[in-house]
Amino acid sequence: MALETLILNPQAERRIRKGHLWVYSNEVDGKKNPLTGYELGQQVQVVSAKGQVLGAATLNPQSLICGRIYSRNGDQELSKSFLAKRIEQALTLREAYFDKPYYRLVYGDSDFLPGVIADRYGDYLVVQIATAGMEAVKDELLRAFDKVLAPKGIVLANDHSARSLEGLPEYVETVGEVPEYLRVEENGTQFDIPSSGGQKTGWFYDHRVNRAELQKWVKGKTVLDVFSYAGGWGVEAANAGAESVTCVDASEQALDLVERAAELNGCDDKVMAIQGKAIHVLKLLIEEQQKYDVVVLDPPAFIKRKKDQKSGEAAYRHINELAMRLLKRGGLLVSGSCSMHLANSTLTDIVRAAAVHLDRDVQLVYSGVQAPDHPQHPAIPETHYLKAQFFRVLHR
Amino acid sequence: MALETLILNPQAERRIRKGHLWVYSNEVDGKKNPLTGYELGQQVQVVSAKGQVLGAATLNPQSLICGRIYSRNGDQELSKSFLAKRIEQALTLREAYFDKPYYRLVYGDSDFLPGVIADRYGDYLVVQIATAGMEAVKDELLRAFDKVLAPKGIVLANDHSARSLEGLPEYVETVGEVPEYLRVEENGTQFDIPSSGGQKTGWFYDHRVNRAELQKWVKGKTVLDVFSYAGGWGVEAANAGAESVTCVDASEQALDLVERAAELNGCDDKVMAIQGKAIHVLKLLIEEQQKYDVVVLDPPAFIKRKKDQKSGEAAYRHINELAMRLLKRGGLLVSGSCSMHLANSTLTDIVRAAAVHLDRDVQLVYSGVQAPDHPQHPAIPETHYLKAQFFRVLHR
Repeated sequence: MALETLILNPQAERRIRKGHLWVYSNEVDGKKNPLTGYELGQQVQVVSAKGQVLGAATLNPQSLICGRIYSRNGDQELSKSFLAKRIEQALTLREAYFDKPYYRLVYGDSDFLPGVIADRYGDYLVVQIATAGMEAVKDELLRAFDKVLAPKGIVLANDHSARSLEGLPEYVETVGEVPEYLRVEENGTQFDIPSSGGQKTGWFYDHRVNRAELQKWVKGKTVLDVFSYAGGWGVEAANAGAESVTCVDASEQALDLVERAAELNGCDDKVMAIQGKAIHVLKLLIEEQQKYDVVVLDPPAFIKRKKDQKSGEAAYRHINELAMRLLKRGGLLVSGSCSMHLANSTLTDIVRAAAVHLDRDVQLVYSGVQAPDHPQHPAIPETHYLKAQFFRVLHR
Repeated sequence: MALETLILNPQAERRIRKGHLWVYSNEVDGKKNPLTGYELGQQVQVVSAKGQVLGAATLNPQSLICGRIYSRNGDQELSKSFLAKRIEQALTLREAYFDKPYYRLVYGDSDFLPGVIADRYGDYLVVQIATAGMEAVKDELLRAFDKVLAPKGIVLANDHSARSLEGLPEYVETVGEVPEYLRVEENGTQFDIPSSGGQKTGWFYDHRVNRAELQKWVKGKTVLDVFSYAGGWGVEAANAGAESVTCVDASEQALDLVERAAELNGCDDKVMAIQGKAIHVLKLLIEEQQKYDVVVLDPPAFIKRKKDQKSGEAAYRHINELAMRLLKRGGLLVSGSCSMHLANSTLTDIVRAAAVHLDRDVQLVYSGVQAPDHPQHPAIPETHYLKAQFFRVLHR
């Protein structure tokens, strides 16, 4: 059964030829094939105005990004065996790099599986489906995961708001047996995170290499971990020899996870927690004249959309300046950002400006991005979002 | 004895206020204080047109970059004790990060010691002086190094061409006893490099963390190390469990160092060398249908000046495409660049374009910069030059 074709406007194939995987709705030739003539999630053969086959894509006629190319072979259907091949290909990368089965197994477009995110926690998977095209083959997808990995259980964490862009309902579903808490091991430290009801897929694997890098700087140091969530930075730092660690988070549930992790790793004597909004807590600590050797900032995205650029940059500036005021002389500022719209160099410049304002100099000693289990697709800037910059802060 | 003042033109202080350390000759108020009135290497107090003191700088009246700020204190002289304080401050950073005394100890502007580069090889230092201002205090500088570290010997490797920009002669001088070969330990691998007559200061510490990262990818793999020099990438890969390593370099002397290192680390059965120009050797290997799991490209700067931008980018494109043709399916391309004028994102795009041309897809799995002993000064883009991007290369 051949796929129906989707003919694009002239020139619309250019970006795709460069490797990009998206088709925007205004790139579709509305006269030859109006989008209204297709079904939600249908698989189509994408064809240039000149008749060249560009690949196979899933279609969402209602979405701005209407097409998501999953293969350069225009006849390829989203079968179980094809999905398994893609998962296998993603797995090969992770197994080449990671010793243990804790990682993002599938990272959407970057693994040529648009609309699929899967995190692995040993024998368990937490999967998110973000497009109508993948939702339509949900059963094949689950069977493909089963074929490649035979997990004991899968959580379909389809309760994220991005699904509304595709007109998909939000729900959580469990396949097989999934315990209440999933065990994670990262950089030699153990964590238990809730299998559902936590943040996103439960754990943020993306900062792993940056957290490993921090371990080299913390021996015998005092560490403040702001926006700590479950203590990824903080508890790993304690485990790596930090003298003491203070985790700050607005969520009580997050701080319970910190406590649990600290106990699990036998470093609960070194880890304490402060519940409260970051800005508020930082100001309080400044008032108390507290000083730390290392301050980690891993905030949520302050720039979610282009229109937040200015206010978002101001928010990064503000928080970095507060953090800097809590540093001892020569201390280390770890400044993270998961805002896709914040360029690496802009973050550096924000920290530079904050330093100048406080009459300090900074040296950028490490500039990290997301871990290898979040590969970047070079043609899709959206797949690169994470930054972690380490600065030594010197008084002038 | 107060420093003579150097008054700048209106607005010329802006860049300096942002943290930059350079004064260009056209920024100096030529009416109030013509540059001809100063001595080569003189220390001056830099003052804005409005009379605000900006800092203390060394001066070279003949140079385009005529002033190099070494302190924000306008009364600060370049005394032995001040130089020792700066060296101490640089040392503190390295000792916080590195277990063993092998690193770049001083990285010029980034360590607020403009014109000074110093690499440490255990008990020995290789020092380069690049400005007339530092040349003028050479004796104080050597005594400052002696005060902080008491090295057994120092090589003043002042035979680099950049000195001609400052009108300085090229020479090599040795202080104390320096053996013919210096021992380096990097990422657990030993190297012997010549104490003089080698390339630059003898070893390229800047890629250290990137080479450490490569170790995680090479177990049981075949590796081609192109522009290998002394085998930093290749011999470390062999030592980390690569099945076999082939080093390619145009210099016979470099390949002698590779051989020496392979023997020193007991992996000479796994390391072989091919002498020849990179492009030529790569083409030959393609003809022979050789394939490798990993290809490393660590070329010299193809873009030395802005005017080389286009030809340099083409050269990167060419060499990356050749390297990609030598990779097995799913192999790893390590693409390095030390061209300051090549942006991170441009290198990524060059590799993307090469891949598209060969009908391949790439995933960017690691994006590294220079090691922490080459800190970046956020206000001086010239201090950020090194890139190492790792790509998994997939057949479509």
